[in-house]
Amino acid sequence: MDIALLVGYLASLCSVTSFVPQVWKVVRTGDTAAISGRMYTFTVIGFALWSAFGILKTEWPIILTNSICFCLSGYILIRKLRANA
Amino acid sequence: MDIALLVGYLASLCSVTSFVPQVWKVVRTGDTAAISGRMYTFTVIGFALWSAFGILKTEWPIILTNSICFCLSGYILIRKLRANA
Repeated sequence: MDIALLVGYLASLCSVTSFVPQVWKVVRTGDTAAISGRMYTFTVIGFALWSAFGILKTEWPIILTNSICFCLSGYILIRKLRANA
Repeated sequence: MDIALLVGYLASLCSVTSFVPQVWKVVRTGDTAAISGRMYTFTVIGFALWSAFGILKTEWPIILTNSICFCLSGYILIRKLRANA
């Protein structure tokens, strides 16, 4: 495994470790009051675009991290938009 | 400009747009109470490793996004650790 890929997977592990607990708390409690819907829309689009970038470059650390975060954040955004509706 | 680079820069723009206002609020108010120091350490290490990954791969969208976010989040982590000390 080359060094860049190793660094990429470690980076991916840190991103997921730091992002998932926050997201999981919102998923578990359903409390989306602290989230800005407008800003979170950029977060979700960002993860989608990073996933696309990873696919275009065939970079697995990027694809894995961002597709996991995209699914979690996408679910939260739907919850948030429903809570506001 | 190839399509992957364009997607990368759009992704970068979304990430920075969604992350910077949150971070800026903490920088401006100095209020780090809502931040988990342990989780945020992973966030900061993650941005550092993504920057290193970008440098190793010479991917400018990754380098730019993550070095900006690394500086901002690093500053916040220092504030948080000082507030706890």
